[in-house]
Amino acid sequence: MNILLASTSTLFGGEYLAYLKEELIDLYQGVDEIIFIPFARPSGISHDDYTKKVGSFFETINIKVKGLHEFNDKIEALNNSKGYFTGGGNTFLLVKTLHEENLMSVLKQNVENGKPYLGCSAGSNIGGQNMKTTNDMPIVYPPSFDCMGLVPFNINPHYLDPNPELKHNGETRETRIKEFLTQNDIKVVGLREGNWIRRINEKITVEGSELTRIFGQGKEPYEIESGSQL
Amino acid sequence: MNILLASTSTLFGGEYLAYLKEELIDLYQGVDEIIFIPFARPSGISHDDYTKKVGSFFETINIKVKGLHEFNDKIEALNNSKGYFTGGGNTFLLVKTLHEENLMSVLKQNVENGKPYLGCSAGSNIGGQNMKTTNDMPIVYPPSFDCMGLVPFNINPHYLDPNPELKHNGETRETRIKEFLTQNDIKVVGLREGNWIRRINEKITVEGSELTRIFGQGKEPYEIESGSQL
Repeated sequence: MNILLASTSTLFGGEYLAYLKEELIDLYQGVDEIIFIPFARPSGISHDDYTKKVGSFFETINIKVKGLHEFNDKIEALNNSKGYFTGGGNTFLLVKTLHEENLMSVLKQNVENGKPYLGCSAGSNIGGQNMKTTNDMPIVYPPSFDCMGLVPFNINPHYLDPNPELKHNGETRETRIKEFLTQNDIKVVGLREGNWIRRINEKITVEGSELTRIFGQGKEPYEIESGSQL
Repeated sequence: MNILLASTSTLFGGEYLAYLKEELIDLYQGVDEIIFIPFARPSGISHDDYTKKVGSFFETINIKVKGLHEFNDKIEALNNSKGYFTGGGNTFLLVKTLHEENLMSVLKQNVENGKPYLGCSAGSNIGGQNMKTTNDMPIVYPPSFDCMGLVPFNINPHYLDPNPELKHNGETRETRIKEFLTQNDIKVVGLREGNWIRRINEKITVEGSELTRIFGQGKEPYEIESGSQL
């Protein structure tokens, strides 16, 4: 496998995907065209507009982008493509669309066969075991929460530390992940913005500028450094 | 109907349910025992411990509390009870349990027949049309997102304004609710902590110390004052 699962597409104050440029040149070596999966639709952006935005970035590294929504036969399109990118947005909408069109398993099979895959945020959630550690609002009801399981754990993108100054009683991210662990025995990688997971064949590491917080059932959460194996 | 749907059980720095004490004396007039629904289990607290915590508060207003989990026949227990309280925690876990045990419709029927109902946070979410505007993490997969529809809109509890100082690219609450409105034509009441919805027969008002933010499809969000009708 050859995959990159990022916490976010865009660093605060940065340009879309800019901080990952060198990584993406490496990920997509030898690939001149990829399929973009726009179904998560952040802020309700149209599939076309989202694909254009992604195309603008990939032009700068000489890769053409086609939106998966443009194809009549999406399964054939996935099977014929040499690489993939799933953008962020709403994970419920993304997972619902992928399951309803029978695309989740087709994408999984192609990626497990070695074709490069990039996910950001919701697109990283679907690389995990299931979507039960997304931060998104359940705006639609997917037929299942199961995901591709490209890594043997779940991801919490945009991981955010508790803010002690916030006078608010909504749950912190850590509380939510601990609630997940009362119901599921699956490791959770709390991926802060600036970090990503890189899998090359059997080797899985966490990369980027921040420490990464790891949660497991019956354990105190702990931090690991960039470059650590997962 | 005679219901109170609160954003939160506990104000920052306050005691459990303390800010609602006078309201609850009014809500439960003539009722000396209620059933508490503990299934949302905040931070994974046990049903027993959660029920004890709730019992301690209700002692101060001379109301006995029994946990719904204590009954073998939960449907009969709901039908025999004179009032209800559903506590906060994880809305997915709450809704899954209520649907799997066929309790959602039984509770709805009893409340629609006039028995007093209090919900806090997740317990307020289930008073809305569906749970698609919860803030909670989808730690379990419920058989449906449908809720009781005690009010003709959805509720977003713990509504939080965007923090301009946060250098983070996760979605704001407003962005999430707007994404909901791209997929659903249901009004959303953004209920800030300190506020609650009160329904007495046909009259539905928002009460409490803060303004309340209203979201609708194709409209700019707007604010209404405490005491306004919904």
